[in-house]
Amino acid sequence: MSGNSIGRIYRVTTFGESHGRGVGVVIDGVTPGIPISREDIQKQLDRRKPGQSELTTQRKESDTVEILSGIFEGRTTGTPMALLLYNTDQDSSAYDHIRRAYRPGHADFTYQSKYGIRDYRGSGRASGRETAGRVAAGAVAMKILAMSDIEIKAYTLRAGGIECRIRDMEVIEQNPMRACDPEAAQKMAGRIEEMKTAGDSVGGIVECRIQGVPAGLGEPVFDKMEAELGRAMLSIGAVRGIEFGAGFSIADMTGSESNDPLRPDGFSSNNSGGIIGGISTGQEILFRIAVKPTASISKEQHSIDADGRPIQIRTEGRHDPCICPRIVPVVEAMSAMVVLDLIKRQAALHS
Amino acid sequence: MSGNSIGRIYRVTTFGESHGRGVGVVIDGVTPGIPISREDIQKQLDRRKPGQSELTTQRKESDTVEILSGIFEGRTTGTPMALLLYNTDQDSSAYDHIRRAYRPGHADFTYQSKYGIRDYRGSGRASGRETAGRVAAGAVAMKILAMSDIEIKAYTLRAGGIECRIRDMEVIEQNPMRACDPEAAQKMAGRIEEMKTAGDSVGGIVECRIQGVPAGLGEPVFDKMEAELGRAMLSIGAVRGIEFGAGFSIADMTGSESNDPLRPDGFSSNNSGGIIGGISTGQEILFRIAVKPTASISKEQHSIDADGRPIQIRTEGRHDPCICPRIVPVVEAMSAMVVLDLIKRQAALHS
Amino acid sequence: MSGNSIGRIYRVTTFGESHGRGVGVVIDGVTPGIPISREDIQKQLDRRKPGQSELTTQRKESDTVEILSGIFEGRTTGTPMALLLYNTDQDSSAYDHIRRAYRPGHADFTYQSKYGIRDYRGSGRASGRETAGRVAAGAVAMKILAMSDIEIKAYTLRAGGIECRIRDMEVIEQNPMRACDPEAAQKMAGRIEEMKTAGDSVGGIVECRIQGVPAGLGEPVFDKMEAELGRAMLSIGAVRGIEFGAGFSIADMTGSESNDPLRPDGFSSNNSGGIIGGISTGQEILFRIAVKPTASISKEQHSIDADGRPIQIRTEGRHDPCICPRIVPVVEAMSAMVVLDLIKRQAALHS
Amino acid sequence: MSGNSIGRIYRVTTFGESHGRGVGVVIDGVTPGIPISREDIQKQLDRRKPGQSELTTQRKESDTVEILSGIFEGRTTGTPMALLLYNTDQDSSAYDHIRRAYRPGHADFTYQSKYGIRDYRGSGRASGRETAGRVAAGAVAMKILAMSDIEIKAYTLRAGGIECRIRDMEVIEQNPMRACDPEAAQKMAGRIEEMKTAGDSVGGIVECRIQGVPAGLGEPVFDKMEAELGRAMLSIGAVRGIEFGAGFSIADMTGSESNDPLRPDGFSSNNSGGIIGGISTGQEILFRIAVKPTASISKEQHSIDADGRPIQIRTEGRHDPCICPRIVPVVEAMSAMVVLDLIKRQAALHS
Repeated sequence: MSGNSIGRIYRVTTFGESHGRGVGVVIDGVTPGIPISREDIQKQLDRRKPGQSELTTQRKESDTVEILSGIFEGRTTGTPMALLLYNTDQDSSAYDHIRRAYRPGHADFTYQSKYGIRDYRGSGRASGRETAGRVAAGAVAMKILAMSDIEIKAYTLRAGGIECRIRDMEVIEQNPMRACDPEAAQKMAGRIEEMKTAGDSVGGIVECRIQGVPAGLGEPVFDKMEAELGRAMLSIGAVRGIEFGAGFSIADMTGSESNDPLRPDGFSSNNSGGIIGGISTGQEILFRIAVKPTASISKEQHSIDADGRPIQIRTEGRHDPCICPRIVPVVEAMSAMVVLDLIKRQAALHS
Repeated sequence: MSGNSIGRIYRVTTFGESHGRGVGVVIDGVTPGIPISREDIQKQLDRRKPGQSELTTQRKESDTVEILSGIFEGRTTGTPMALLLYNTDQDSSAYDHIRRAYRPGHADFTYQSKYGIRDYRGSGRASGRETAGRVAAGAVAMKILAMSDIEIKAYTLRAGGIECRIRDMEVIEQNPMRACDPEAAQKMAGRIEEMKTAGDSVGGIVECRIQGVPAGLGEPVFDKMEAELGRAMLSIGAVRGIEFGAGFSIADMTGSESNDPLRPDGFSSNNSGGIIGGISTGQEILFRIAVKPTASISKEQHSIDADGRPIQIRTEGRHDPCICPRIVPVVEAMSAMVVLDLIKRQAALHS
Repeated sequence: MSGNSIGRIYRVTTFGESHGRGVGVVIDGVTPGIPISREDIQKQLDRRKPGQSELTTQRKESDTVEILSGIFEGRTTGTPMALLLYNTDQDSSAYDHIRRAYRPGHADFTYQSKYGIRDYRGSGRASGRETAGRVAAGAVAMKILAMSDIEIKAYTLRAGGIECRIRDMEVIEQNPMRACDPEAAQKMAGRIEEMKTAGDSVGGIVECRIQGVPAGLGEPVFDKMEAELGRAMLSIGAVRGIEFGAGFSIADMTGSESNDPLRPDGFSSNNSGGIIGGISTGQEILFRIAVKPTASISKEQHSIDADGRPIQIRTEGRHDPCICPRIVPVVEAMSAMVVLDLIKRQAALHS
Repeated sequence: MSGNSIGRIYRVTTFGESHGRGVGVVIDGVTPGIPISREDIQKQLDRRKPGQSELTTQRKESDTVEILSGIFEGRTTGTPMALLLYNTDQDSSAYDHIRRAYRPGHADFTYQSKYGIRDYRGSGRASGRETAGRVAAGAVAMKILAMSDIEIKAYTLRAGGIECRIRDMEVIEQNPMRACDPEAAQKMAGRIEEMKTAGDSVGGIVECRIQGVPAGLGEPVFDKMEAELGRAMLSIGAVRGIEFGAGFSIADMTGSESNDPLRPDGFSSNNSGGIIGGISTGQEILFRIAVKPTASISKEQHSIDADGRPIQIRTEGRHDPCICPRIVPVVEAMSAMVVLDLIKRQAALHS
């Protein structure tokens, strides 16, 4: 109700602020009897954690996960899994200057407006660190989905104005941009280094493909599969848009162009992104999200303080010049949760 | 759970198929004591109904709403409002040919895959007629929102490849496209007539602005305002994408360009679309949706029948060559529900 | 959220006031492909409707149900079923005297306190007529449960101070009390006639048995089966208590008496009422509810008017001197919804 | 959905098994800006913890709570509060004998039936230790309620067949039974010592009063206040029944006896237990619950093992001979959550 949970049956609740005791997640609705190890979860968290390359923030964060409950002798019990990551080594003094000041592009002003109080240190609850809980919950979902041969793959399609020309799924984890085109990845890296030096940041586009989803998932009319995925993606801090299949370009098509013909051996195109009428078609699910440039930049910007007086502000410290590579595992995690939840809902409907 | 409800407190549940007895909606969580007349609701339904102009379908549908409950002596009682629109004069025989055939771009195949049974007549539950219930529920929400001076305005920004050059809010209801530029509206109409004659259809982009939303609405982290609006919009049949503020163009910006500076008299730009960190900033809420071309076209298309055999299929009957003008009131209705729900959630949090 | 829905997957939402246009229900999460006729539903409604015998109110209410949606060619489609009963022939003038007066034992004062407005005619939303929607939704649930050989039987165990000495399931529908002991039923009827003449009413106890429930249903820790059944029963207007198995008498037992021993051929007692740790044991589910005397009596009572001034008030009109026989089908309906919902949740958990 | 959460707006999710890493709770919907200290919570946990007297189990459990999130500079931030109690010093070997055996009265058999796997150590998730999370969440709710002068008081009314003859609220925390009659408390203690020596246990009745609840809380029709309280109480492990106000004795009353007359200065009786039509009347809320004898007894009992073979079983170790005194703070905690949630829902309805 207050927005810290997602999913109806596979229900994920995150908690924690970036400079409090820790961040974590409680997962309810976990299928019982599934073998899951701490390493299965840690592996995904390591893909999200800061400091992976020159292109991401150099902050040291302890992303070591502790399983508090829900596992017995290496298998899920069907009771809630609580996963905790303690916060360590935070230097909160770096945030003293925003105690009573609002950074442009950050949630400082809006959190203050909403709650009348905010933990300003490291952006508090609005910190990207909150997504660690999501990635952990997604890792558990992936283990369950793997049993149905469902595979999820996200990657940077565009960053700093540079777009991938090929979509090579094999190279994604081999470049720090998590891009699907190694050549483009290198250009992106160059552009980002440049912006970093200038004290600025860049945005990009992340694409995601989900394979192996059977036809029939999604709950019309309000919980259409694109509505559920859309909501999940738009709940990630930096995401400003989402489009499925042909996306916004469909606006300029005609019906005879956009309709995907059916043939005895399947659909012959996928403008729909694998979803028609809110229900999966059995094709690949395909969507793209718009990622805004990191709000934390060291260039001076105009803003106001808590009394409404004009100030100049610059964000000190180590921040991601481009968040795309670290959003990739978050997008995969959110996708896994949504698909698993819809599988469970479909089973419930037919029971 | 099965997808026919939306909203947490202002909770809307639609029901009905296009060729069954009727369509309707039950609204729970209605603020008590609000004066609402049948006409308040009918007025919005008339904006959605077919046959408004040459550019929309010429089907005759009874969009006459009956208030079954929740109103006493002209005011809401706080108990559920049930609103019903009987279906009349349907000729279901026109749909005999799809009893065992799947139309491209339609939900025929996916509904069959999901449920194992479907009311194929007039697309059944997947019919656009289901949105009548949404518009009715939105009309009630708008009456409640009007008390807080919140105003919602959607319009066709682009259709058939033609984009509005100006955004004149006054002209929207004066042209059949509900476009914000009368000149563009005329060109759109021409283009659509052309496509209609060719047995084809076109897509477009609808933009929506919400004014008067106070800072502080939206529920981090999963029910961010953009997540709630995104989910609501993506639950409308023809919508394939949504973007907020600068939208996908933000992908190519730098942080210093995209961050909206704060000044003592407010923000000096609105790349965020009025939402930061999932919470309203107090600025105008701004988003755009991608609308696909109507799937029903009279051109022949490849498809399959229920036995998987190849067929040629063309949709007979009267269909909208461009759905944008009729989606406008649906977008406004969904927006009203979301904003009202978030207002109620904010009140609950602070109690 | 505002209390007009129950169930997570088999989700039932009732609407309507007793003197408005009608009452009804929307059911979401209906298993698709189940054959259901209007008569299946009407049959249960007829067991609830007034005027069945001298022992129930002589009011004439149209309990004729209309299926608005969710059925196609005699089978459920998995889309929401909306069921409507129009109100007819109401004489609202009989309620003029309570427009600004509060009847003792009725929800007049509390509805006014909660909503600041109320439809006072025939108790409005608080009318027993609201349960028609429940009975209809229960009838649908029963059809689905019948496929799993689950059977639900409720009956009057005690009324007007007279308790059944035997529990003969065969006689229940053969006496107007729906009691499980024909001799006791006759005595109850005598006592009730007496009270009716005196302008008074009586309470009683209704017992319910659910057979065929497999071991393993119920969702610890908060949605234990007794919690779900308890909530469902306590949501019925006149119910003031519920107990499972040995019930309140367990308070005076010792552990060695109350624990149900397990044997290779099953449990050898059922003090638990078929539920341990919130999960069904595979035994019969057994519970009893306390039903208060009908609040509407023609004896004069002390009360106050809307201005807080003392008044004398007596309820005119035709009312049930004992509501037990008509609560029986409501108890069965609520039980059916709860059990079906838990079956669906169990399927979802294991998917 | 899987039963580990309760409440709509003040939403509480517990996690943890008694012999895993720890138990805890996440609370969403916490009113922001409320001063809460760790001690406020610890104080309530200390009332629940084992080893408080000779009459409760002598097990040592670390009930030291750690606040992981949601508090900043001593005040709630409106973000989720996660509270954790690590498990310490557990000797799981004491449970080896039930690895493949089912104890009568315990949830061993039913958990195995439901999940196909169970953490048998210390009853796992079904352990009373799970209620620590509830008590913690209730302590937070109480701090918020205290601002509205709402006070909750539960106490042992009956145990081992001995009933309190007076209701003295002052003596409750001064006797180990938490009974409202010091004389009865002593007799209860004697009886319990006796049963403990005999390797047996006793049940009882706990009563609860909630004062200061304004008229108008509760959400008809399904979330009536008694339905919400009933569900909350029946979700506590040992509870087998609940009754409000006059409770089951109302079954033998007449309407003229049971209806509570209204007078200008308030109601002149409280048979309704402070709730009519599911909505609070402004009177004291009053209910009683039936508590079964502790299932863990050292007497030999018949049961079966995992292969269905007959066995004799006795529960070793230190267990509560009567759980009533330790259920008292749990009942208060659950009551606090329910009332706070209904206050928030009422605010939402009227916004």
